[in-house]
Amino acid sequence: MLVLITYDVSTVSTGGASRLRRIAKQCTNYGQRVQYSVFECVVDAGQLELLKNKLLKIMDDNHDSLRLYILGNNYKSKVEHYGVKYVENIEEPLIL
Amino acid sequence: MLVLITYDVSTVSTGGASRLRRIAKQCTNYGQRVQYSVFECVVDAGQLELLKNKLLKIMDDNHDSLRLYILGNNYKSKVEHYGVKYVENIEEPLIL
Repeated sequence: MLVLITYDVSTVSTGGASRLRRIAKQCTNYGQRVQYSVFECVVDAGQLELLKNKLLKIMDDNHDSLRLYILGNNYKSKVEHYGVKYVENIEEPLIL
Repeated sequence: MLVLITYDVSTVSTGGASRLRRIAKQCTNYGQRVQYSVFECVVDAGQLELLKNKLLKIMDDNHDSLRLYILGNNYKSKVEHYGVKYVENIEEPLIL
């Protein structure tokens, strides 16, 4: 099934930049980065629980936000993309 | 139906900051900001087309990315949120 993972990590709070990198790294293990803080992960229920628990351990509940959207198995017609594809650019932070 | 709108707007390109504000403003007319560049909009098919066309007119295809995820009508069980709720903080740009 396709699971969309979006997050806001407060990089102004202590350890925020490290949490951001670790969250992105974990998501990369399970899926594809499609925007700066948006990942598309094709996982089964077990993998989803594993990934979710890892992300919940990393994030700071008082400063960060994590959202999961379950799009199911028939997701091709549910996703539309316009504009540029995401290009990994770790060097400099993107101001949104 | 619930439509998730996520975007990356390059604020380093000319007019980027203005495009970001205008895209957020349009989405606010149709739904709720749940993360810095993530909106949840409950719309019908006609409203979706209207909103999409407005966003496509604002965005710069060469620098920005817009993604739409159609979650349908039975979306309550498809959305999970952990951590802080989004709080509008227009004053200073959030570095993600």
